[in-house]
Amino acid sequence: MSGVVKHILLLKFKDSISPDEQTALIQKYAALPNSISAMKGFEWGTDISVENMHQGFTHAFISTFDSPQGRDEYLVHPVHDSFAKELLGAVDNALVFDFNPTVALKANS
Amino acid sequence: MSGVVKHILLLKFKDSISPDEQTALIQKYAALPNSISAMKGFEWGTDISVENMHQGFTHAFISTFDSPQGRDEYLVHPVHDSFAKELLGAVDNALVFDFNPTVALKANS
Repeated sequence: MSGVVKHILLLKFKDSISPDEQTALIQKYAALPNSISAMKGFEWGTDISVENMHQGFTHAFISTFDSPQGRDEYLVHPVHDSFAKELLGAVDNALVFDFNPTVALKANS
Repeated sequence: MSGVVKHILLLKFKDSISPDEQTALIQKYAALPNSISAMKGFEWGTDISVENMHQGFTHAFISTFDSPQGRDEYLVHPVHDSFAKELLGAVDNALVFDFNPTVALKANS
C-alpha cells in the first residue's frame, strides 16, 4: 500500500446540535476533497454496530491520503483548519486515528 | 455502496502482551477471511496520527462485509468467537464502530 494514510475521525455531536446542523457540517466535510487536492478519498457513516462497544461515538469519517506528507498538507490547509474548528466546536468527543494500511487478501482471491 | 458494512476495531494491547504475542494475534486476525466467507476485506495498521487525539488506541483494524447480515454471520462464527475472546483478553481497551459508508467523490474525478 506504499505510503497511503487512512485518517479515521470518530465523533459524537453535542446534544445542542440539531440534525439539520449535523447534516450541514457533514456536507461541508464531504466537500473538502474539492478544495484540498491531498484528500484522495472520503467516506462516512453513522454507527450500526451491535456489540455496544462504540463508546458513545455516533459518526465515523475516513479520509484517504497518498502519503503522510499529503495528510500533513491537509491538516494545515486553511480550508480544513477553518472547518475543523467549526466541527470540533459542535462535538462532545472526537477521536482521530491514522494508519498506513496493511491489507490481507483471502487465500482464494 | 448498497449494504456494505465497514467494521472498525480500535484497541490498545495490555503492557503484558509482548510484541511477538501482538504479532501472533494480528496474524490470526488477518487469517480470519480465509475461514469466514462473509469477511470480504481486512486491513490494519498502527497509529501514525500527529494530532494527539487517538485516546490511547494503538492499533486499527477495518473489516468489510457485503451486508449487515454478513457482519452478523461473522460475529457469531465460531472461528471469530474463539479469536475475539483471545484478543479481548489481551487488550486494555477496545472500541468497535460499524457503518454503511457514504462515499464522497471529488467533483473532478
